[in-house]
Amino acid sequence: MSQRPLILVSNDDGIDAPGLEALAQAMEALGEVRIVAPERQQSAVGHAITMQHPLRAYPHRRQGRVFGTAVTGTPADCVKLALAELLERPPALVVSGINHGSNTSTNVLYSGTVSAAAEGALYGIPSIAFSLCHPDWEADLSAARLVAEHIARKVLERGLPEGVLLNVNIPPLPFEEIRGIRITRQAQARWIEEFDSRTDPLGRTYYWLTGTFVNFDEREDTDEAAVAAGYVSITPIHYDLTAYSVLKELRTWPWSL
Amino acid sequence: MSQRPLILVSNDDGIDAPGLEALAQAMEALGEVRIVAPERQQSAVGHAITMQHPLRAYPHRRQGRVFGTAVTGTPADCVKLALAELLERPPALVVSGINHGSNTSTNVLYSGTVSAAAEGALYGIPSIAFSLCHPDWEADLSAARLVAEHIARKVLERGLPEGVLLNVNIPPLPFEEIRGIRITRQAQARWIEEFDSRTDPLGRTYYWLTGTFVNFDEREDTDEAAVAAGYVSITPIHYDLTAYSVLKELRTWPWSL
Repeated sequence: MSQRPLILVSNDDGIDAPGLEALAQAMEALGEVRIVAPERQQSAVGHAITMQHPLRAYPHRRQGRVFGTAVTGTPADCVKLALAELLERPPALVVSGINHGSNTSTNVLYSGTVSAAAEGALYGIPSIAFSLCHPDWEADLSAARLVAEHIARKVLERGLPEGVLLNVNIPPLPFEEIRGIRITRQAQARWIEEFDSRTDPLGRTYYWLTGTFVNFDEREDTDEAAVAAGYVSITPIHYDLTAYSVLKELRTWPWSL
Repeated sequence: MSQRPLILVSNDDGIDAPGLEALAQAMEALGEVRIVAPERQQSAVGHAITMQHPLRAYPHRRQGRVFGTAVTGTPADCVKLALAELLERPPALVVSGINHGSNTSTNVLYSGTVSAAAEGALYGIPSIAFSLCHPDWEADLSAARLVAEHIARKVLERGLPEGVLLNVNIPPLPFEEIRGIRITRQAQARWIEEFDSRTDPLGRTYYWLTGTFVNFDEREDTDEAAVAAGYVSITPIHYDLTAYSVLKELRTWPWSL
């Protein structure tokens, strides 16, 4: 008896984010959908996992119907818990998003959206992170939904190399204005941080993190350049952080203790 | 007038961890030390940053003396805030640790210790994460302290390639039993997670994350293998997560929207 593929859907904006619902709807065309997502917004948690306290998971209802499972933890926690405890069988695909905001370049490091997909990849399951490059929760998700369905379908058909996930960034354009898909690399860009320093009513200083995102990478093959030119960018990502290019040089140093 | 190099010291175990004090002592031989560390334990926060609420930073005292600056945030927050606001001049070196526990292989993803050093590297400052492969806060730190001083001295002399930090793991051995230093790559190893599912007094289920760390990588040039053989492992790490090896293949897929 053939079963429809099981698809795990998570995110970092939390279970009530419109992007999660749009992604779940897109995946319903492709398989059996299970939603396991943080009960609250978890943006910029990076690859945090919860070890100091226990997790809870509970049915999240909308208009009386169970919409998915809410977890009192991070995106990485959600995927770990879903794979180890909550799902009845291993999923064919793990998808995360649709994030409300870009996850290009070094933003990947801080992205809970990407970390949820990374957990899937660490378990050997084809995994994709989707982000719409528009921070507004009211932004139109209809084009992003079509893009997500298109890319997820391809990945279900073809699989992905072991340990590799796709990080997809979608420009905030109507579907007919999106120029296509580009396979990209992570741009060399980063935040130039500033802290907005303020004084509370008791006279104590506090700091808000703020800053400007600067792209130092002028080449055309990056995620940043693709989105800026109106393309969907797909960057394959892996979790071997070894800087292989410098191993040889470092081995020439006089290290002896 | 020549100044001693400024060295920023942070960690993820929190400002009261013995490993932080040991690292600060090691660095005093090399320069002017500034401690900026989380006020509370932040293990497994990964590369989380705090954007939803403001940060505070305050002098942390021990026996009446100011020991360092405690920050109400993550390790990445500490380094960002130190570099942008708290330090009087740019540091010559950012060091993080000495973590109480190993940060080999994919543990890097979850490691606040490594993320603190990564922030330094993102700012173009030579940065090193140090971990003692022993989880006990009472573990003997004297060998790790000597190793940290030795490696930091080399890095101060020679610098590091742009965007690369060193992830150092130290075996839990007396100094004279450490066999040397190996330049390594990240092992292909990961946690096989399990959740310990329990029932609270109100009858609700909760889950503790647990698991077993399994090394699937049998080659000798990894961080895991080095530490297991009694060597200090130094893995150069960078934050371009692009899986370059699969770009070409992915470009052959029929992606057209």
